[in-house]
Amino acid sequence: MSVSVHDHARPLPHRVFNFSAGPAALPEDVVREAREDLWSIFGTGIGVLEHSHRGPVIDRVLGDAIQDCRRLAGVGETHEVLFLPAGATLQFAMIPMNFLPADGVADYLDTGVWAHKSIEEAKRLGSVNVAFDGRPSHYDHLPSDAELALSPSAAYLSYCSNNTVFATQFEAPPRTNAPLVCDASSDMFSRPLDFDRHAFVYASAQKNLGPAGITLVIVRKDFLEAARPAMKERLPSMLDYRAHATAGSRLNTPPTFGMYLIGRVLHWILAQGGVPEMLRRAQARSTLLYEAIDTSGGFYRGLAKKESRSLMNVSFRTPSTDLDDRFVTEAAEAGLDGLRGHRDAGGLRASIYNACPVAGAAELALFMREFARQNG
Amino acid sequence: MSVSVHDHARPLPHRVFNFSAGPAALPEDVVREAREDLWSIFGTGIGVLEHSHRGPVIDRVLGDAIQDCRRLAGVGETHEVLFLPAGATLQFAMIPMNFLPADGVADYLDTGVWAHKSIEEAKRLGSVNVAFDGRPSHYDHLPSDAELALSPSAAYLSYCSNNTVFATQFEAPPRTNAPLVCDASSDMFSRPLDFDRHAFVYASAQKNLGPAGITLVIVRKDFLEAARPAMKERLPSMLDYRAHATAGSRLNTPPTFGMYLIGRVLHWILAQGGVPEMLRRAQARSTLLYEAIDTSGGFYRGLAKKESRSLMNVSFRTPSTDLDDRFVTEAAEAGLDGLRGHRDAGGLRASIYNACPVAGAAELALFMREFARQNG
Repeated sequence: MSVSVHDHARPLPHRVFNFSAGPAALPEDVVREAREDLWSIFGTGIGVLEHSHRGPVIDRVLGDAIQDCRRLAGVGETHEVLFLPAGATLQFAMIPMNFLPADGVADYLDTGVWAHKSIEEAKRLGSVNVAFDGRPSHYDHLPSDAELALSPSAAYLSYCSNNTVFATQFEAPPRTNAPLVCDASSDMFSRPLDFDRHAFVYASAQKNLGPAGITLVIVRKDFLEAARPAMKERLPSMLDYRAHATAGSRLNTPPTFGMYLIGRVLHWILAQGGVPEMLRRAQARSTLLYEAIDTSGGFYRGLAKKESRSLMNVSFRTPSTDLDDRFVTEAAEAGLDGLRGHRDAGGLRASIYNACPVAGAAELALFMREFARQNG
Repeated sequence: MSVSVHDHARPLPHRVFNFSAGPAALPEDVVREAREDLWSIFGTGIGVLEHSHRGPVIDRVLGDAIQDCRRLAGVGETHEVLFLPAGATLQFAMIPMNFLPADGVADYLDTGVWAHKSIEEAKRLGSVNVAFDGRPSHYDHLPSDAELALSPSAAYLSYCSNNTVFATQFEAPPRTNAPLVCDASSDMFSRPLDFDRHAFVYASAQKNLGPAGITLVIVRKDFLEAARPAMKERLPSMLDYRAHATAGSRLNTPPTFGMYLIGRVLHWILAQGGVPEMLRRAQARSTLLYEAIDTSGGFYRGLAKKESRSLMNVSFRTPSTDLDDRFVTEAAEAGLDGLRGHRDAGGLRASIYNACPVAGAAELALFMREFARQNG
């Protein structure tokens, strides 16, 4: 409609390091691409936000995103890859609605704030066995096999692989004979996950994958086909995974920009070296921060026990809430943003997802050491 | 994290006129703003996609969007303004889940493809009276009062104010004593609507308001508070309007970019002169196209009867499907995109929502006249 020549002759502003828990930092390369494609994508003269969800541009965007997702997950036609609107909290309801039969029971592990919410939603809809309750220990560790009180024949076992608030992360999936359902919202594609061992994996996008308001689902087709929803034919189509699968994630007008942005992030992950490289960086980032905690002579205390520590979120405290506040303020002044802890845990938290540069964690670790020296 | 100086010295590419039915064209001014804010918003050094949904930036973005929405709708504290994830199809289920009691019945008007889908969803969940069935007349007109077979005490009457596929639009809301529920997805803020006469108005954003994957809801608080959901305490929180209202649209991590973009579009509408100016432009655009149809000597035939014609979508046919195909191809070559009709109606369709410049409709009208001259 118009050609603008001088629009962007000025430089882009400076950006800061963003440790927000989600919505979280995106890879800068992806943000640059999105800025271009917002105006016109693939030379169409129409921005990505404005293309029909059934036109050739979104066909290609979605097709590429699914293909890259399959490559990263290492799954073939045994699995469905779905992009669904809304975040994980809608999945907390949809999972029991689809997979918890009226006469069945599901095992849930209560390992953190979000796992607990998933239990609350499931309890409204069916019979739930809380096979581990982490609340008495303030969610400071994840269960050993001996701590699990599994039901004899659960329809599935639901767990959250990484708990963002108290910053714990399962090193391996819990051992059970039931189909595994995993909320991987906060560590998706940051380390290898055995998708063949999992019946259903989901991740809201705003931490490791893209924008808020869209969720990636990778589900084994045999699990999907065996579903016996308690609501049966009363299940609304938007809450029916089989309807979404049949429609190829385009049952209605889907969140096309979210599909696009996830696609660009998946492409970026592959270009960086894939999941192994994401793991290497996650280990580098988290090691920098945990060392700053562990060598602070007790000035910083981690919220999680060492054996359960997360590579994605590092939650810790200074000796006082006043110092916590000062830490947040002075860090922000130093260009290190988003470090206040979750309201349910207090203290401080650094979220260091895939898009967080190792250099950002290194700067934060330096800041932590200097802050401890000055205030210790 | 980095400063890039030369990144955007080159001009932005040329854009075309986009008549897509949704996702649809956005105001170019808004796309320009979004490109800036994607990189860094409000001078924070963090892009709008990457800010915490509970931080001060999204507080301001959401607060401004709600305020501008109230101004455009002319509603005060008697109404809730909600921004909910996913599109209208989820509302098709949520509305009966929340407002259709187990012992009640709801009136629905079957006036088009989307109205019909809303009926299918509602029938799964409760008792539905189809008070008007437009299918026998191929959805070519909207019901007169005499054609309505209302139930004596409906929990609500649900209608779709503008039907995109067959391109009909209610001139005034249907007359009923039941609370009015309106799907205004395709004509929201394109003309005045009496929000005090409506109990519940919703609009998925991808036509007149923003990106796909988010829905704006304006609901009267008295209607919301009187809701007696059939599922009662079994209603999942994400499907519970009262839970969303209590949480101020931040029950979980909401689609923050959608909130942002709707906010910018609402701001743009106000800056253009508000709803009266949107109506003036809608009349100008649609008059240009309907005149091109009506003066074509029968070459073009509209799908809707004249008295039911929409100001937002113009559906029409040439004398043959071959000519329809040629029209789409040649129009695209002339920089007029997205003119193929919906798969359920065939033919041609121009969607001319708020963001479509009058100049775009004028160019299309010229093209239509020239095409008819060459092929008539």
